[in-house]
Amino acid sequence: MPKYTNLNIISYFLFDVHHTESLLKYDYFNAFDKDAIQILLSAVKDFSDKELFPYIKEMDEKPSYFIDGKIMVHPQFETILKQASQLDLVKASLRFEDGGLQLPISVFHSLYYIMEAANNQVTGYLGLTLGAANLILAFGSRQLKDTYASKMLDMTWGGTMCLTEPQAGSSLSDVKTQAIKVDHTDYYLIKGQKIFISAGNHQFADNFVHLVLARIKGAPFGTKGVSLFVVPNKRPTDDGLEDNHARVIGEFEKMGQRGYCTTHLSFGDEPDCRGWLVGEENKGLAYMFLLMNEARIATGRMGAGIASAAYYASLKYAKERPQGRLLNNSGKKDVSHEQTLIINHPDIKRMLLLQRAVVEGSLSLIIQTAHYLDELKVCEKQDKEKYELLLELLTPIVKTYPAEQGLRAVSNGLQILGGYGFCSDFILQQYYRDIRIISIYEGTTGIQSLDLLGRKVTIKNGKTLHYLMEELSLTITEATHYQEIKPYANQLKEQSDLIKTVLAKLIPKALAGDFENYLADANSFMDLLSTIVIGWQWLKIATTACKNGNATQLENNLIQTMAYFYTYEMAKLDGLVKILLNDKSITVKANAQTFD
Amino acid sequence: MPKYTNLNIISYFLFDVHHTESLLKYDYFNAFDKDAIQILLSAVKDFSDKELFPYIKEMDEKPSYFIDGKIMVHPQFETILKQASQLDLVKASLRFEDGGLQLPISVFHSLYYIMEAANNQVTGYLGLTLGAANLILAFGSRQLKDTYASKMLDMTWGGTMCLTEPQAGSSLSDVKTQAIKVDHTDYYLIKGQKIFISAGNHQFADNFVHLVLARIKGAPFGTKGVSLFVVPNKRPTDDGLEDNHARVIGEFEKMGQRGYCTTHLSFGDEPDCRGWLVGEENKGLAYMFLLMNEARIATGRMGAGIASAAYYASLKYAKERPQGRLLNNSGKKDVSHEQTLIINHPDIKRMLLLQRAVVEGSLSLIIQTAHYLDELKVCEKQDKEKYELLLELLTPIVKTYPAEQGLRAVSNGLQILGGYGFCSDFILQQYYRDIRIISIYEGTTGIQSLDLLGRKVTIKNGKTLHYLMEELSLTITEATHYQEIKPYANQLKEQSDLIKTVLAKLIPKALAGDFENYLADANSFMDLLSTIVIGWQWLKIATTACKNGNATQLENNLIQTMAYFYTYEMAKLDGLVKILLNDKSITVKANAQTFD
Repeated sequence: MPKYTNLNIISYFLFDVHHTESLLKYDYFNAFDKDAIQILLSAVKDFSDKELFPYIKEMDEKPSYFIDGKIMVHPQFETILKQASQLDLVKASLRFEDGGLQLPISVFHSLYYIMEAANNQVTGYLGLTLGAANLILAFGSRQLKDTYASKMLDMTWGGTMCLTEPQAGSSLSDVKTQAIKVDHTDYYLIKGQKIFISAGNHQFADNFVHLVLARIKGAPFGTKGVSLFVVPNKRPTDDGLEDNHARVIGEFEKMGQRGYCTTHLSFGDEPDCRGWLVGEENKGLAYMFLLMNEARIATGRMGAGIASAAYYASLKYAKERPQGRLLNNSGKKDVSHEQTLIINHPDIKRMLLLQRAVVEGSLSLIIQTAHYLDELKVCEKQDKEKYELLLELLTPIVKTYPAEQGLRAVSNGLQILGGYGFCSDFILQQYYRDIRIISIYEGTTGIQSLDLLGRKVTIKNGKTLHYLMEELSLTITEATHYQEIKPYANQLKEQSDLIKTVLAKLIPKALAGDFENYLADANSFMDLLSTIVIGWQWLKIATTACKNGNATQLENNLIQTMAYFYTYEMAKLDGLVKILLNDKSITVKANAQTFD
Repeated sequence: MPKYTNLNIISYFLFDVHHTESLLKYDYFNAFDKDAIQILLSAVKDFSDKELFPYIKEMDEKPSYFIDGKIMVHPQFETILKQASQLDLVKASLRFEDGGLQLPISVFHSLYYIMEAANNQVTGYLGLTLGAANLILAFGSRQLKDTYASKMLDMTWGGTMCLTEPQAGSSLSDVKTQAIKVDHTDYYLIKGQKIFISAGNHQFADNFVHLVLARIKGAPFGTKGVSLFVVPNKRPTDDGLEDNHARVIGEFEKMGQRGYCTTHLSFGDEPDCRGWLVGEENKGLAYMFLLMNEARIATGRMGAGIASAAYYASLKYAKERPQGRLLNNSGKKDVSHEQTLIINHPDIKRMLLLQRAVVEGSLSLIIQTAHYLDELKVCEKQDKEKYELLLELLTPIVKTYPAEQGLRAVSNGLQILGGYGFCSDFILQQYYRDIRIISIYEGTTGIQSLDLLGRKVTIKNGKTLHYLMEELSLTITEATHYQEIKPYANQLKEQSDLIKTVLAKLIPKALAGDFENYLADANSFMDLLSTIVIGWQWLKIATTACKNGNATQLENNLIQTMAYFYTYEMAKLDGLVKILLNDKSITVKANAQTFD
């Protein structure tokens, strides 16, 4: 059986560490019990084993392509999309009234994590259709919902999110796709180009529904003048579907995720490309960002999934490959002995522990974040602010940590294979290529870091961090009861105070209006806070593992991995603090002439 | 003009920082003066501009391939190899008596660095031919020299180094290619397979000469039973060349360096594959390692070259791409303004400074190391030990730092391009793929780290480190004279003491025979020592830049980059020390069951 993730660990994280069962007592989630969720996890694992994992390499070697105005993806997608629809994988987490099943988001993300570990070229096609439908369901008119959403939820039609333009990547203020209201109709005429549109068209959907950011003629400058439109490839009329003059005009050839198409769309090259406004004028970016938060969690999850697959691929190799010998106590190797398996070398174990620590720490944070989303649906009114602010704070982290550290994990996985890791016959080199996009999708690490330090930390005078530290305190207090992990609880207590030290130094810069220096090392702040957050997750996992007294092998392994994280990964925090406390403004003062 | 390196910086490093001119006064090097070297640098830059750089992308897109028992490389190699021969690029650094020009190795490495920055698929073909010829010249009989070396030095024939076998990668003790002495002849019959043989055959050389590690029947176990043989594809006879039954049987398809072939060779599938012993029986590995040290410097140099190319490619983009706006002093962006070039964003400048710091710090160390090789040729007898031991210590570092940090630099370069960095239309994704092999070639980072801590640090009771610290002291003392950089001199003084702290803790473990724990974190020790060594190089560069009083723009930029290195890169040292001082033996205690 292919091994790319461990269902026991996912289940342990959901039910033991993050108490998913506690959600199921609420009316909102009562369509599911624990058994139903376990069955669902197994069903998706089974689907991934059979339909996803066996095709990952082939999708890379025979990538999607653009021909005759069409995008062609790997033929296996026909089966995949059909079965994904049968498993309700697009609509599962939506509300009953929207046609969904009200599955906890924490479980939903676990299902996608499994699929992404099996084959990271696949879930984008589902996720973007869901994201686009979600926008319509959240902000669209009754008519838009009726016309588009249900067809997208059962995957007859696909969906995309159209933000980026050639001159406007991270800077959505500069979107210039145009929308002109047509008098006496309910639509606008859309004209403009969008690039890097993931999952934009393929041969296995009857129609595509694009959610497009555009500027209504005369709208204000910047993000305040951006509106959101539904622009289908084919628009429904009384007689069926008619061409809506939205075209795919190319595909971007990429280093990785080559089975997952990235398209160039053009709207209105022919005269009659119609778009329907979603919600109110000029509020498009606010709508988009509500969904963007989910997309950012999903992106982090995809990174963790790829890193999981790489971990198991390198583990398999390490358990099978003989090479070298252990040292005897005179520091020599006895060459008359058989070679040892490389998994017995400490440096190989280091690379495996590093991968586990990153992969499972990330997974736990993904479930944690999703759990807050679930809580938001059922919690008392007075708890709402807490969960909302925790989500604001954690979203850039859950996007970034698995991207940045996941890449490092995958690269360590490749290293375990030595020269074979670089060869196309082995899958590690593909994961190394695939995961490189994760720190770019949905806002680069630079953008996430600015968001974290520039916006999230300062909301309501730092209430976001206040709530986070409360959560850490709860975990620390609980962990302190167990001798085995008490030193780690103390370490987290001490190291989480570093955040205060850093902000005490930085905040005055912001207050003095020196935002450039305030934000110059946002990247290091991201590294600092995200490592502490993952440390919190590991302590939570280890505390759970200690609770039952007689730890299982799985629990012992988790405790060992926690110790690795605290000893090796958290060692870097003092260095990050040094960077954040320095006053030299080196990067601010540098200019174009510095680089020759 | 294509920009992939900066000749002014190379020249500054050679003549101002590392005093290459001081070598030229010795008889050994007196065929060259400073002008001649400058002309040579320009000639190789010109060759690289015209014949190497324009083909790098095409060599990736149309990689070398195996067909009908032959390896076919890109047709441009015909021109490249011819011109490289005309420029004496293979033999330049060899002794007159061996047919060389006695060019300083420090200059030689600079030439190759330029070529590698232009196109990293090329130099391996030259370097391996040189390496193989060098082995023959150093240890072969008169007859072997006459028969093979001169034809290799003018590149009529190519050469390879055949170490790795399917069951013996890092563990050369386990080589099992067989050599059987044929009575009454001067040769042995060779039988066995070698994999990952770089540059093994191509259509533009008349013959290939393989330097093969093999085991003579009855030889002792392990490395002590390994001998070195010359095994040509075609053997010279009185009537010309005849088939020697050495075959290419395949090529490894790789993620990167796709224009640089990696072959699978088979010796003696047909009965008469002859090999000629180089030097004495059972000393093959010792011979190979003498050359391996040069190969390791060359590998680090290749990593630095790739990172240099990535730096300039990302710099070009950063200087041309408008995106976003700078913050005003209320922390907002004025969207009515034009977008700013991304080079004005501090986070982009951080990524550029990181790249410069790694690229130029690596280059300086490469020249420093090569300078010691040059000194060895001309120094007084009493200085020989110093240079030899410094070379022992620095070789694993000069191999590893540009590999590990170069990868990080390239990845940051890619990040500067955002989504375009991931697209095949831009070159960054290729550099990201190409550089990934550097930490695997010629001994992985794990192997280099074991070599550094397990062997190099302990030679003559730590005399290697003693010499290194003396070198650091000289630089620190000189730097202390300049107010502007004095704080950095103090920082290096303080932080270089960390090595002592760490070894005081580690050495007792080795003395107690606990080599597994002594070496368990060799990887972190490598990171620690190599960062200090690069810090030393940066201080040396900055001191040179301060010397003239009126610093030029180039010198100011170097001083700024030094400040970046000391503030951002050296911040991590305390964390590494924490790891190295911990007593938990986490990676040693983990076992196969830890990973599930």
